[in-house]
Amino acid sequence: MNTNQIQIFDTTLRDGEQVPGCKLDTQQKLVIARQLELLGVDVIEAGFPVSSPGDFHSVQEIGRTVVEPVVCALSRAVMNDIETAAASLKTARRPRIHTGIGTSDSHIQYKLRTTPDKIIERAVAAVKYAKSFVEDVEFYAEDAGRTGNEFLARVIQAVVDAGATVLNIPDTTGYCLPQEYMEKIAFLRDNVNGIHKCTISTHCHNDLGLATANSIAGAQGGARQIECTINGIGERAGNTSLEEVVMIMRQHESLGMYTNINSKLLLETSHLVSESMGMVVQPNKAIVGDNAFAHSSGIHQDGVIKRRDTYEIIDPAEVGVDESKIVLTARSGRAALAYRLKNLGHDVTKVQLDELYKHFVVVADRQKEVGDNDLEELMGSVAV
Amino acid sequence: MNTNQIQIFDTTLRDGEQVPGCKLDTQQKLVIARQLELLGVDVIEAGFPVSSPGDFHSVQEIGRTVVEPVVCALSRAVMNDIETAAASLKTARRPRIHTGIGTSDSHIQYKLRTTPDKIIERAVAAVKYAKSFVEDVEFYAEDAGRTGNEFLARVIQAVVDAGATVLNIPDTTGYCLPQEYMEKIAFLRDNVNGIHKCTISTHCHNDLGLATANSIAGAQGGARQIECTINGIGERAGNTSLEEVVMIMRQHESLGMYTNINSKLLLETSHLVSESMGMVVQPNKAIVGDNAFAHSSGIHQDGVIKRRDTYEIIDPAEVGVDESKIVLTARSGRAALAYRLKNLGHDVTKVQLDELYKHFVVVADRQKEVGDNDLEELMGSVAV
Repeated sequence: MNTNQIQIFDTTLRDGEQVPGCKLDTQQKLVIARQLELLGVDVIEAGFPVSSPGDFHSVQEIGRTVVEPVVCALSRAVMNDIETAAASLKTARRPRIHTGIGTSDSHIQYKLRTTPDKIIERAVAAVKYAKSFVEDVEFYAEDAGRTGNEFLARVIQAVVDAGATVLNIPDTTGYCLPQEYMEKIAFLRDNVNGIHKCTISTHCHNDLGLATANSIAGAQGGARQIECTINGIGERAGNTSLEEVVMIMRQHESLGMYTNINSKLLLETSHLVSESMGMVVQPNKAIVGDNAFAHSSGIHQDGVIKRRDTYEIIDPAEVGVDESKIVLTARSGRAALAYRLKNLGHDVTKVQLDELYKHFVVVADRQKEVGDNDLEELMGSVAV
Repeated sequence: MNTNQIQIFDTTLRDGEQVPGCKLDTQQKLVIARQLELLGVDVIEAGFPVSSPGDFHSVQEIGRTVVEPVVCALSRAVMNDIETAAASLKTARRPRIHTGIGTSDSHIQYKLRTTPDKIIERAVAAVKYAKSFVEDVEFYAEDAGRTGNEFLARVIQAVVDAGATVLNIPDTTGYCLPQEYMEKIAFLRDNVNGIHKCTISTHCHNDLGLATANSIAGAQGGARQIECTINGIGERAGNTSLEEVVMIMRQHESLGMYTNINSKLLLETSHLVSESMGMVVQPNKAIVGDNAFAHSSGIHQDGVIKRRDTYEIIDPAEVGVDESKIVLTARSGRAALAYRLKNLGHDVTKVQLDELYKHFVVVADRQKEVGDNDLEELMGSVAV
């Protein structure tokens, strides 16, 4: 089995921050950038410097602050964008310019109003210009998910020849199915000369709920970098969730992939980003949601109390969660009731438990959750 | 191409409702059940009747209320559970009992503390007993995702022979990769005699963010029912999101699958469930999140203003969303500014726009969103 490191390219501060309501000031961005470095991400996409003076300044400051990760700045295939990106990256120890252009029919005809050949020209010119400032140049083929593989391979061949070091194949509109995306990446790997010297990257959006599956499929097709964000934030339905792809690679050794991420920092990083941006993480969010390790049905609670892994594939401590929660509701059973009573210091017999349970269910039907206070009241009112 | 209808089995009122904080009373459940019928779901899992008197009553009332959908009640492979489920379903026009037992090593050894042969005996006894009350009996092989395919096929063969009509192959812990889950379903389809007379069902959990991809993969492997919930609520990280699998099948005709769902009701159904349960839907949730059709980066806005499908694969109206949002932030460009000014009745020249944009960016760097009031102020203060 070949084991391969997958680079984690975090775009929380660029694709995430451009979302309605998520704007951060430079100080907030620096706090998150430092946390991303601690977390172990390989690349931090720090912003889109030409978009505003504030964003330019943030990229500069992040470059000045972080040590290990590559610091990346976005630009369109426009000379002024690239110059501005290069200027903002002067402070960075390991700078990368990320430049690119739309390659799908829809983007070429309706957005850019040009021709396929002109797109290739502009792509090559952008990569060459970026290379005049920095060695590490990532090219994105925007809307690659809806670009025909033959034309995409022509574009990618041209930018590889022009010196691009990383090749980003974004599913910009979140359209692809996993198999299709895997085949797209594999097609490029097999049909572009010299591509083995470059890193192929995924960048998936979650419009159909498939960003995570597509990113893993892309890595199976040959990608060695995954672009993602904390909590899966980003344009529209967001990007691939960093925490999900990282934990999939950890849980499934058969994939033969690993990352440099310290998973124990996932929960605190999730909280930091959510609180800084005011972007709620829904309770049923995988890995970092409040309920991700909460058990409430009687069937599940009984299993988890007997042995954690009957209903949990991840040890909560692995992602920074203190412990699994056993929440008492009308769907809870005797095992959970006894467990929670025991935590409160009440050891009850089987007969007592049966009697208590009858009263418990009536209380539980009236309210959403049964808390410790309710349990003490129950113990006091029922003659056991 | 074979085109196949996929049955949508909604378990919002069972797997969804058992979540901490999500408990509903009978009246609230009836409102949701009626909405699910309007939405066009094929099966409503209405509850787990043995768990509490309130839940029993709710299943009864839902059975009395809905006309078209099958009404399903959950039970363990326990005689009392099955009797109680049967009693609660007496009001239903099309009743189904859902019964089953754990089949993975972890469940057999640690939760049930029994042997594989005993599991098969209990499974068969449960199905036969359920069949004595209703014709339509669905069997679940709990933790099938971590059950070896050979043993799983033995269990499924036994319950098919005992008269089960629907075979639920749950990935209870959200562990499987899509390819693996597809192969599991295909293995059963190819190795269980008489399985073609039954419906194979998926039931996926989202612990690794793969529930949606796994459900589609299961259907590709031969499943013809998908179990899911509105907003993807459910135990821990939740179940497959109904809205995601439905829209994938609509967007990807090449899958050759369709459902009976009226997608125009997806958003209002999402809001109803979220509000009744007090379960927040994160803004970056696919299909039904507040930002699912919001565009804020300049690059994207420019594209969407020129032609919607450059950045949107789904027409918002298809899922009940009024229109795409063009939100103004520090990442917005001139195209979006001009578009929003025009909506306010201000037609500006290119030169005026350049001047306004300079001031706009400064305002936008200071605040998260630039609203209509800010734009009017900008028009007043800048000499254009």
